[in-house]
Amino acid sequence: MPRSSAKGSIVPRPFHAPALLLTAALLALRAAAAPVVSPETVAVQLREAALAGHNIAYSWLAELTTRVGPRPAGSANEQAAAEWAAARLKALGFENVHIETFPITAWVRGSEHGELLVPSHQPLAVAALGESPPTPAAGIEGDVAIFATLADLQAAPAGSLSGRIAFVAARMVRTQDGAGYGPVVAARIDGPQAAARAGASAFMLRSVGTDSHRLPHTGTTGYTDGRVPLPAFALSAPDADQLERIAAFGQTPRVRLTSSASYVRGAHSQNVIADVRGSGKPEEFVLLGAHLDSWDLGTGALDDGAGTAIIVAAAKLIRDLPHKPRRTVRVVLFGSEEIAQPTPPGHAAGGFSYAENHRAELPRHVLTGESDLGADRIYSLALPAAAGKEPFAATALRVLGPLGILAEHEPPRDPGTDVGPTAEAGVPAFVLYQDANRYFDIHHSADDTLDKVERTPLDQNVAAWAALAWLAADSEVNFRGASR
Amino acid sequence: MPRSSAKGSIVPRPFHAPALLLTAALLALRAAAAPVVSPETVAVQLREAALAGHNIAYSWLAELTTRVGPRPAGSANEQAAAEWAAARLKALGFENVHIETFPITAWVRGSEHGELLVPSHQPLAVAALGESPPTPAAGIEGDVAIFATLADLQAAPAGSLSGRIAFVAARMVRTQDGAGYGPVVAARIDGPQAAARAGASAFMLRSVGTDSHRLPHTGTTGYTDGRVPLPAFALSAPDADQLERIAAFGQTPRVRLTSSASYVRGAHSQNVIADVRGSGKPEEFVLLGAHLDSWDLGTGALDDGAGTAIIVAAAKLIRDLPHKPRRTVRVVLFGSEEIAQPTPPGHAAGGFSYAENHRAELPRHVLTGESDLGADRIYSLALPAAAGKEPFAATALRVLGPLGILAEHEPPRDPGTDVGPTAEAGVPAFVLYQDANRYFDIHHSADDTLDKVERTPLDQNVAAWAALAWLAADSEVNFRGASR
Repeated sequence: MPRSSAKGSIVPRPFHAPALLLTAALLALRAAAAPVVSPETVAVQLREAALAGHNIAYSWLAELTTRVGPRPAGSANEQAAAEWAAARLKALGFENVHIETFPITAWVRGSEHGELLVPSHQPLAVAALGESPPTPAAGIEGDVAIFATLADLQAAPAGSLSGRIAFVAARMVRTQDGAGYGPVVAARIDGPQAAARAGASAFMLRSVGTDSHRLPHTGTTGYTDGRVPLPAFALSAPDADQLERIAAFGQTPRVRLTSSASYVRGAHSQNVIADVRGSGKPEEFVLLGAHLDSWDLGTGALDDGAGTAIIVAAAKLIRDLPHKPRRTVRVVLFGSEEIAQPTPPGHAAGGFSYAENHRAELPRHVLTGESDLGADRIYSLALPAAAGKEPFAATALRVLGPLGILAEHEPPRDPGTDVGPTAEAGVPAFVLYQDANRYFDIHHSADDTLDKVERTPLDQNVAAWAALAWLAADSEVNFRGASR
Repeated sequence: MPRSSAKGSIVPRPFHAPALLLTAALLALRAAAAPVVSPETVAVQLREAALAGHNIAYSWLAELTTRVGPRPAGSANEQAAAEWAAARLKALGFENVHIETFPITAWVRGSEHGELLVPSHQPLAVAALGESPPTPAAGIEGDVAIFATLADLQAAPAGSLSGRIAFVAARMVRTQDGAGYGPVVAARIDGPQAAARAGASAFMLRSVGTDSHRLPHTGTTGYTDGRVPLPAFALSAPDADQLERIAAFGQTPRVRLTSSASYVRGAHSQNVIADVRGSGKPEEFVLLGAHLDSWDLGTGALDDGAGTAIIVAAAKLIRDLPHKPRRTVRVVLFGSEEIAQPTPPGHAAGGFSYAENHRAELPRHVLTGESDLGADRIYSLALPAAAGKEPFAATALRVLGPLGILAEHEPPRDPGTDVGPTAEAGVPAFVLYQDANRYFDIHHSADDTLDKVERTPLDQNVAAWAALAWLAADSEVNFRGASR
């Protein structure tokens, strides 16, 4: 059982002088008393320290998004972010800090412009979709053919849209769990192909997002035979409304779209790796993931600077414990999550590269999870099925319960893009589900900036990640299913 | 006293078939009973009809912002809006509908771009301020000198900012009455001059707005010796935050700014005038104003499409009454409100042109007011001082009270930009104060689009304007102060 005198003993290095004095006093107390502290007590102490703001998440995030800003995959900024992160992780006392590079084809946004020509000259707020090809320099001009859904566009006869620009107007639904994303993101992925098959000269969609600002949401789109077949654009929600209203007034909107986007063959991206080496079985890993690249329009504060800040801050709290956990806690800051490379299909390059490079270690990866849904609060925990048979689950939920975190009754369906290849190789995964109500207002738009991050839920995230990672790393649970 | 059988007799022409049937029945009833209805009862009926949604404000606004979109002063779009409005006003049964043109120098936004160069390449969301001159084609590059306020910039020694770009970081405060606007808009007006005096090569300010989106707020700026002395830009709030954070991290932000804005000499703008001719003293006018021009970034839904919709819808309800008011209700949709011409200083061109063209009529303008603060609800009424001595004020407040409208104890300080020249010529003015909490999130930005307008408060505005305009027009009150 915990002793009250030990309560403050694992308070991490704080940032303010009064707290420093407090810590020094408590460390002295700990040295004198040296109480035996249970793993659950340590988890509670990690939780409370994080909740009290004694964690580096916000300062990490502020520095990353300010000094580096946008970090598109394969860019100089992404590389600078990786170098900055590696240097910071070393300075924070992480071990085995290194960068693993891998080749990608980078996509670079050029100048881009959208304009209504009929019923009058009106600027349109557009963003080229990631990896979509440029238009001719004079742009592409055409009447707009409006489809309510991707399925309607896919049903258009071949050649029926010749000389026209296809537009899918489907709206994303706001939900806590982000379930509205899937039904509409399909149009972003498969829309250009469907539009090309119908003979259209370009593709547009209503931004995959839940806000109503003149800020389009970009994102990657799908390849057909190794290329994105058409120039493709997201329209902001109010601009999409405008096209629909023009049609409702009985007019056919006519638009001009330009983009000078380009590709950089032979670019590279990189993963940043850092360990808190375990004290008992350091060859076993609890892998925490998030991605360092971002879209280019904003500064990648929510997507996914926040995730990197949360897992680094959580691991740093564990790093600063007087006693390290038995297993190694590994942090991986993935590169090139946002760009879906055509090979292998469906895999982001960073996650795939990690699974490739560390294939021999994967059987000793005991658990993995990633943080990539912004900075709002966590409301539930999904553990691998095997964890339900262990006291581990009950302990974890006791510790996370005061954070407002419930148990999911199903194991994770999709552990995330970055750790996906690792999970597919058999590594058990958990998910800490975050409230996504606000996330898709911001996601992939120019509005993804630091001011959207609130400190209280950010600290709650760090608290949950630190406590859970500690409990898993200090345990001997086999999350694959056989107790030992 | 009102008779309950007469209650529905002035319900205006509604838009839905069931209401049409109802109206027909009530009109038949009125023809049979022909009750004497007090002006206050008519005002209540106007109010209730507007509140029930039987008014054209939203459809007017939807059509204006969709078919025409942005309406910058002197543009083809502004002219198209005036022609559209005049045709619609004629079709709605207004009398004396005509357009009065006047010369202006138009300002045309070109392509514009802002970019951070230090500490890294990051796009900046910028908008050239109205009437500010272009940069050289290669842009203006410089280290940023940050000033907390305009006064701090004004205190910079002459020549001290040579080769640098001045940036005023002051933030607007959100309040119900919009009082936060004045203290910061001074930087937009006088900043370029102060920056030029200190030797800066360009001027930037944090957008005059209360939101936190990557959408800069444009607006007019001040002339010095007949010109705006420097290229001048508004930064979005998150971009302004970013510059301040970079400085807080100990680095000097370096930026490049480009604008290809241009001027069109010999352009013109226009006011649209329409009357509901009075039944007793048609030579006396109650003047309702709003402006038809807008900034170019959005579609001018709140600023000031909403104002035009509110006053037109209110006047249309009065137009459709079985008995016209004694005095003429005049609607003026002003042009070129947003551009402050250097001559005469401080006067918007539309308001000045009206006062000039109608100088002989102004002594017979008994009351004026304008709607130019968006579409959120009205919370108070300020009447000319002389009205306090009349039963008129008590009646008006009895009718407006159920709309949640209180009495202001002071007469209007500033009746508005459009009717300002008319008021300065001695015409008494009222103000219906609107809730401005949300207005400056949107004002002068690309986000000023129809989706920001909510129907319930829009209807409340129409209700108040219709009731008040009716009461003033049907009365014999001399708002200048001498009862007759």
